[in-house]
Amino acid sequence: MSNATKPAIKALVFDAYGTLFDVNSINQTLQELLPQQAQEVAAIWRRKQLEYTWLRTLMGQYRDFYALTEEALAFALHQCGASLEEPQQRQLMGAYYRLKVFPDVPEALSTLAQSHTLAVLSNANPSLLERATAWNGIDEHFSALISADEIQHYKPVPAVYALAEARLGLPAKEMLFVSSNTWDVAGAAAAGLQTAWLNRNDSAGQLEQLGYPPLAAFPSLAALRTWLMA
Amino acid sequence: MSNATKPAIKALVFDAYGTLFDVNSINQTLQELLPQQAQEVAAIWRRKQLEYTWLRTLMGQYRDFYALTEEALAFALHQCGASLEEPQQRQLMGAYYRLKVFPDVPEALSTLAQSHTLAVLSNANPSLLERATAWNGIDEHFSALISADEIQHYKPVPAVYALAEARLGLPAKEMLFVSSNTWDVAGAAAAGLQTAWLNRNDSAGQLEQLGYPPLAAFPSLAALRTWLMA
Repeated sequence: MSNATKPAIKALVFDAYGTLFDVNSINQTLQELLPQQAQEVAAIWRRKQLEYTWLRTLMGQYRDFYALTEEALAFALHQCGASLEEPQQRQLMGAYYRLKVFPDVPEALSTLAQSHTLAVLSNANPSLLERATAWNGIDEHFSALISADEIQHYKPVPAVYALAEARLGLPAKEMLFVSSNTWDVAGAAAAGLQTAWLNRNDSAGQLEQLGYPPLAAFPSLAALRTWLMA
Repeated sequence: MSNATKPAIKALVFDAYGTLFDVNSINQTLQELLPQQAQEVAAIWRRKQLEYTWLRTLMGQYRDFYALTEEALAFALHQCGASLEEPQQRQLMGAYYRLKVFPDVPEALSTLAQSHTLAVLSNANPSLLERATAWNGIDEHFSALISADEIQHYKPVPAVYALAEARLGLPAKEMLFVSSNTWDVAGAAAAGLQTAWLNRNDSAGQLEQLGYPPLAAFPSLAALRTWLMA
């Protein structure tokens, strides 16, 4: 993909899961609790979690991200013929508050914060965002942690992305939304933001056929930084 | 699942794909065109087709079902490193107009039409519904073929299910929506219709954790008919 001429970018708005936070770090807890079925449960859990954000928004039946993540877990366990006692479920869900960031995140944010306003825009509950950023010591870099919970609709509804304009007081075109999720990139672009696809899997990734391709694609936050500084 | 006390049902409203029409009948054409990769392409194609109905509705970027099915096919082919010439693609997409119904459908509809008003409520373009029902000789049984295209939003948006009330002139509570798709069942129930889950896969199926369970579940249309007549 050719990376187009760079517009004036004042703020970087990051998606959380898969972009800053490595959701696979939950799989470690799952592996301890369900050694045989961890991989299958994790895959179904993640897919259902995403589906439930879409379906509940379409149905007009909002539940917060933590609650629907528990419902997605119940589906995944049942599908795999697995079960967890309540204390184990709490332990597993608790891992969401202590998700690890990808290794390149702390240094990249620290450098980017010197030149740009930084924010997170996520489906997650505000408390999840606050605690997981604090746990990783990256909270100080962000001007805002913006949650879809504020309007009780999930991405890719345009109003969710519009929250960034309201909270940062910047026009959409001066913000670069960064996400590893291809549908999220398309959603942000449809809402008028500039977009960058963080393709952490590189060769395995493929953009959606939804129109609204990103302005640029990068294999790492370091590559994004280099492009911004050039 | 215990099948609850039956309310007064005046109309049966059927989902199309997976419920009346067997989408696996497309895989036969796919098998001829791409013998090595047919199974993988089919699985990704179907998943993306569904995702794109949800995502485009959430994004406010409607495209009709035929067009987004082509886009989902392009994604699936690319993901599998496969390609088709344009005439082959047209042949494959053309199979949507000649989808076969499941073997139990013609007789079940013929009998049910004697006691109930019947309709189809589907994401598909009106022309797809008209031609596929005519191709299978089941068009005469339906009072209405209702397409989400009328309001340019896809299921499970409540307004799509509300189209059945408007077209059939019946209150939601007097219509039984029948679908093999668990998320579709939940969506119709959230919109106020009575619902029946047609669990054609039986043991493999599992209801969603979205609330709004169906009134009843059946392994076949024959079982549904027996319940209605009891």
